[in-house]
Amino acid sequence: MPEDTGKFAPLPSIRRLPAYLRLLQSLRADGRDVVSCTHIGKELGLVCTQVRKDLAVTGIVGKPKVGYNVPALIASIEEFLGWNNPQDAFLVGVGSLGRALMGYQGFQEYGLRIVAGFDVDPAKIGVEVHGKKVFPLEELGNTAAEMRVLVGVLTVPAAAAQDAARSMVQAGIRAIWNYTPATLEVPPSVVVEDVKLSASLAVLSSRLAESLRREKTESV
Amino acid sequence: MPEDTGKFAPLPSIRRLPAYLRLLQSLRADGRDVVSCTHIGKELGLVCTQVRKDLAVTGIVGKPKVGYNVPALIASIEEFLGWNNPQDAFLVGVGSLGRALMGYQGFQEYGLRIVAGFDVDPAKIGVEVHGKKVFPLEELGNTAAEMRVLVGVLTVPAAAAQDAARSMVQAGIRAIWNYTPATLEVPPSVVVEDVKLSASLAVLSSRLAESLRREKTESV
Repeated sequence: MPEDTGKFAPLPSIRRLPAYLRLLQSLRADGRDVVSCTHIGKELGLVCTQVRKDLAVTGIVGKPKVGYNVPALIASIEEFLGWNNPQDAFLVGVGSLGRALMGYQGFQEYGLRIVAGFDVDPAKIGVEVHGKKVFPLEELGNTAAEMRVLVGVLTVPAAAAQDAARSMVQAGIRAIWNYTPATLEVPPSVVVEDVKLSASLAVLSSRLAESLRREKTESV
Repeated sequence: MPEDTGKFAPLPSIRRLPAYLRLLQSLRADGRDVVSCTHIGKELGLVCTQVRKDLAVTGIVGKPKVGYNVPALIASIEEFLGWNNPQDAFLVGVGSLGRALMGYQGFQEYGLRIVAGFDVDPAKIGVEVHGKKVFPLEELGNTAAEMRVLVGVLTVPAAAAQDAARSMVQAGIRAIWNYTPATLEVPPSVVVEDVKLSASLAVLSSRLAESLRREKTESV
């Protein structure tokens, strides 16, 4: 466990931890016990000092001239991310994207297990989506308290996002994984992480358009 | 159409364009013809100069003391992003996430329409997923050429990502929306945009763990 220095760990380091974890898991599967920062860096395209800095956020340091103990490093990253102990999560907004995410099992590998859905549409309530029940939104508070759920996945339409987030906060949800394009206002004790698929698609399509435009210009 | 200055438009500006678009569409729905950068900035939490800079990447400038013409600005953003003319896309890797994305209709709003899936697993081939056919991966080249598809959504397992990306490039795919955690190597003419859901979840869960840790310390 890292010492609480009163500072948050740097975001780019945190965002790289899953890549370290995957590499280390494959090294472990190959029977390797020890790995150097040089080897890790080479695999992930990072310099050694960056690797050390990134891994230090989890509270672990390598031994000079020896390197990192692979199982210990895996445990340290998993503990830092809380992925050794997957969180149950509720999904709010059982539309097309919500259904899709409820059917995806892969988040469990990343410490998240969606266990139920919530919606305001009476037609959706009581239905099972990929084996998970859909409840009315007004039951979110009771259910979250009962099941001690702290994480919510938000997949309502943009216009309904702030209201839904408010309900989630009132229900005791402490971390919102926000798939809506809205910028949510929440108390400082609540964590929001935006996925912004529309922003990602904007980059993809504008880059493609630009690349095709250049090609056309060059071929004239 | 913006002049080709030989420079790419700045990424943060591009990533904000969908938010501008949504705001402008709601203004248009309310019957507003003209909007100032001050008003836009207030709604989106940005200063006026930033709004002007962001919107200028699409090639449009506001009139001093009047502002922007709403329909013209919408058209300009949509043209810049290519969203006035949605691209057909192929999805490669019809696993749990792939199926989920094939069932999601919302990307059409952002210029992307997934029209078919590709996989190497014989059990998946010929099957329809949400009304879209799944073809064998080795047919990707022919099908992409025939249907003039330039965009690919990559949802294979991490270990298969680079090989699948190579097949996509050979098939003439020019833009890859990469949902795998792998860092893809592609020729400079091919655009890659990484979604990195695992990185996003790493931020969410580490922030939550940190927030709960603090609370515990404070309540001691």
